[in-house]
Amino acid sequence: MAGVFENIDIDNLKFDGQGLIPAVVQDAKDGTVLMVAFMNKDSLAKTLETGLATYWSRSRQKLWVKGESSGNVQKVKEIFKDCDSDCLLLKIEQVGKAACHTGQRSCFFTQAKSSQGWVEISKPIVDTGKLYSKKSK
Amino acid sequence: MAGVFENIDIDNLKFDGQGLIPAVVQDAKDGTVLMVAFMNKDSLAKTLETGLATYWSRSRQKLWVKGESSGNVQKVKEIFKDCDSDCLLLKIEQVGKAACHTGQRSCFFTQAKSSQGWVEISKPIVDTGKLYSKKSK
Repeated sequence: MAGVFENIDIDNLKFDGQGLIPAVVQDAKDGTVLMVAFMNKDSLAKTLETGLATYWSRSRQKLWVKGESSGNVQKVKEIFKDCDSDCLLLKIEQVGKAACHTGQRSCFFTQAKSSQGWVEISKPIVDTGKLYSKKSK
Repeated sequence: MAGVFENIDIDNLKFDGQGLIPAVVQDAKDGTVLMVAFMNKDSLAKTLETGLATYWSRSRQKLWVKGESSGNVQKVKEIFKDCDSDCLLLKIEQVGKAACHTGQRSCFFTQAKSSQGWVEISKPIVDTGKLYSKKSK
């Protein structure tokens, strides 16, 4: 298949019973784990073709070009599969800094602190109100 | 619950239809993503209690203290949950360096290279023959 990542065989990957494979999304520059999302074969093919991270939204049951509505897309720099071919790792550049829909940079902003429970350790870096009203296309 | 990580409420996490939650496992020092595994409530409780990463083995359908047979355990330094409470991130210290059963440091040693396909970009750092015969208990 022509595209940003050409001739990558995705038929050898192990998609689960729902046809999905989890993708860990990591900042290509500093290694921060930003989020985990799921891909089906179509969304992975589109990711490889366009170089923009495209997932399968389980809640909306549709292809989801990350940042499609806000403009804050994820430019995919590198893609890896694991030893079992049942998980992907994407190293990306996050346009607009925040990968999380809450406006936080990473979705993993809540830490298990002994004796304190779950503690939010960072704050939103973008105003999600502005983010999601910026583009309506 | 007493243990290394005390009083962490795990009832508010979203386990999937199989009672599992994925856990991204990252090197606490340099941020390398080492593997992705699944936990059920029991394995997470044991992880919090002992401070040693304990998963649910989907293939063997049993609790799996990572490194139990080889001695190469994962000491859990930090635990995070994501914004949807349906994914965990563990920052760990990998005893014995290699997190992957192939003897590679990370399970994600196979990269999608444009026009070349899937390419193994690193080599095993430990001899798995020695690793898995070291302890038989």
